[in-house]
Amino acid sequence: MKSIAILGFGVVGCGVAEVIEMNKERIASRLGEELRVKKILDIREFPDSPFASLVTNKKEEVFDDPEITVVVETIGGARIAYEYTKMALSSGKTVVTSNKELVSTHGVELMQLAHANHCNYIFEAAVGGGIPIIRPMHRCLAGNKVERIAGIVNGTTNYILSQMAENGSDFDAALKEAQSMGYAEQNPSADVDGIDAQRKIAILSTIALDGAYVDPTKLFTVGITAITTKDMEYAKEMNASIKLLAIFENGENGAFAYVAPHLVSKSHPLACANDVFNAIMVTGNAVGDVMFYGQGAGKLATASAVVGDVMDAIEHQSRNAHVAPWYESETPVLVPIEEHRVSVLLRLPDSVSDEQIEEAFPEISCQPCVYEAEGEKAVILGKDGDLNEAKLAIGLQSFDNVLSVIRIF
Amino acid sequence: MKSIAILGFGVVGCGVAEVIEMNKERIASRLGEELRVKKILDIREFPDSPFASLVTNKKEEVFDDPEITVVVETIGGARIAYEYTKMALSSGKTVVTSNKELVSTHGVELMQLAHANHCNYIFEAAVGGGIPIIRPMHRCLAGNKVERIAGIVNGTTNYILSQMAENGSDFDAALKEAQSMGYAEQNPSADVDGIDAQRKIAILSTIALDGAYVDPTKLFTVGITAITTKDMEYAKEMNASIKLLAIFENGENGAFAYVAPHLVSKSHPLACANDVFNAIMVTGNAVGDVMFYGQGAGKLATASAVVGDVMDAIEHQSRNAHVAPWYESETPVLVPIEEHRVSVLLRLPDSVSDEQIEEAFPEISCQPCVYEAEGEKAVILGKDGDLNEAKLAIGLQSFDNVLSVIRIF
Repeated sequence: MKSIAILGFGVVGCGVAEVIEMNKERIASRLGEELRVKKILDIREFPDSPFASLVTNKKEEVFDDPEITVVVETIGGARIAYEYTKMALSSGKTVVTSNKELVSTHGVELMQLAHANHCNYIFEAAVGGGIPIIRPMHRCLAGNKVERIAGIVNGTTNYILSQMAENGSDFDAALKEAQSMGYAEQNPSADVDGIDAQRKIAILSTIALDGAYVDPTKLFTVGITAITTKDMEYAKEMNASIKLLAIFENGENGAFAYVAPHLVSKSHPLACANDVFNAIMVTGNAVGDVMFYGQGAGKLATASAVVGDVMDAIEHQSRNAHVAPWYESETPVLVPIEEHRVSVLLRLPDSVSDEQIEEAFPEISCQPCVYEAEGEKAVILGKDGDLNEAKLAIGLQSFDNVLSVIRIF
Repeated sequence: MKSIAILGFGVVGCGVAEVIEMNKERIASRLGEELRVKKILDIREFPDSPFASLVTNKKEEVFDDPEITVVVETIGGARIAYEYTKMALSSGKTVVTSNKELVSTHGVELMQLAHANHCNYIFEAAVGGGIPIIRPMHRCLAGNKVERIAGIVNGTTNYILSQMAENGSDFDAALKEAQSMGYAEQNPSADVDGIDAQRKIAILSTIALDGAYVDPTKLFTVGITAITTKDMEYAKEMNASIKLLAIFENGENGAFAYVAPHLVSKSHPLACANDVFNAIMVTGNAVGDVMFYGQGAGKLATASAVVGDVMDAIEHQSRNAHVAPWYESETPVLVPIEEHRVSVLLRLPDSVSDEQIEEAFPEISCQPCVYEAEGEKAVILGKDGDLNEAKLAIGLQSFDNVLSVIRIF
């Protein structure tokens, strides 16, 4: 009998208890012994829950119990979850989590704490919900240098963008729809401003860089709040979808990581991820492109990843480090985003002349877009790899009225 | 310094040596020590190869060397590869392979031999080439019951079908094109008759059934040789792609596994895998649908999976069993395919009447297809779940001239 505790009985925590219950025979068969949730720590009570008898608000019942060797942290955030995670790791209990904010903020300290206490800090569920991504990238692709990661990693924004594309809704209407469906929070900022995606690509980038910590708060991040129905019209005419992409690149010039909306060709596999689905394309220097697709959020899907990690932790105890331990690098890990080569769709009023564009972007490749809405001038800049973020930012300042700038994937 | 040997210096074997060389620093950094290919066993010599000095035709130099703890088997087939694999496992050397024929035919014996000798038989590369599928399914999705697997697992046939769809080629022309590109063998039977896909779904099914061995030779298998340009016309009008799908299903009625061409809606993520790319959709009862996409074949892609397995074997030595050991079940593992519910597009000459169809398929749901080519009658049978393979086979016998039967996914 292996006993675990769940900290935080919200949506995902409850999902973990449900998945363990739903699949208990096959889990027991696989582990060779029964897996049970012994305690659920939460300040609330859940009198109507089938798991009510397991719920306690006394943390000693979890942290002082030697029978409990693995703790699931599904509290969220970086305050009480941080304290409890440190408490668990310090007493040698492995912590399994879906908490991308905590992992991306305090991952270095927590993984080093786990290492010092011969246990593990494991977080497959923190990126891509139920989709296997961390373990495949770290183990199956271990023979590769990861050259690029491009992911649709936030279901809220993907749902909003899909609604806008399919129904012609504007951003506000699509956001309201997402909120009514439970796909967006009342305060949706973390999603629509790209913060959630930023944290996830910081985690994946750190793993791709073999543990060299990437600070999410330092990453160039653009959300989707400026995307309009007119942008959607352009995307449709260009046979593309607008997707919020979280990107890591590691080439000859060094490593970049950033989040921004991109036009993605409809023939690209990433474009097949719509609504709340996520998709993460990883490019390795041996394997080429591999893509992982599935439900990036949701109670049972996220719980699936947590339970997979719990089972792995139990099967391997402290021997199988989840990923290479994270560390703070002495030298900068990422190249400044200003140097990153980019190609964009630029929409301007048609009062702007070709000469003005040439002056704003000297010696930058510039082609007319296949489509121009009435009253507009639309060009593709930087297709030949001669535009970087610095030149883009500087050039845009020449114009009083930039209608839209969307990066092209 | 960890030493391995490669058996068989063909395309994949050579790829393994190249990937290890290409990424040697990061591999050494990850393992904490250098990984070297010490010997390459092949009856041929490769005087122009940078690895020529490692090549030997004396098997004792591999099997009698205690320094060599992991052996890569990239010979292929089930004869000499089988003998050498047994030899290696019997002397406690872990074997890593891409050999789907050997794994699907002798997997039970070889895994039990590995277990008895405290080593492992590991084969991520046997299914989906470089795409991580086995390890994610077995570990990350361990908290799920796998309810379905639907895979485009053969690049040759996917390339042929893509050519037929995009260029209007007929099967013979598309096959020639594939052969000239090196995507199909001179004797393409194993691919176009579905045998390769059959082996791969047998492997995945066995893993989904926690090791209960599924014999590939017993699986209902239809290849792509009967697909015509007219079928492609129907697919286009139905907004679908024709894909050779390898399918496993495990529901209330038991488990099925089979291979056949299917019409797949263009809006389904599986339809995004074209040309030589593979895609495998796995459905778990907690995670829902997850899909793994990438290069299912090719020198470096397949080598990537082999090297990932080699590194994992070295990191975990004999402690980390790749998958649950396989065994021969005393009771039948699969339900006879006759009972499997199926929905099909049936194309007949238009001289056939509705009454004749009703008589051949009594009380089976039957709808006109959205498209009918001139001179044809086309119906969708079994959409309501009331048709099984037995009734389909019996009903088809009523007609002298069945133009086409394609299953609908």
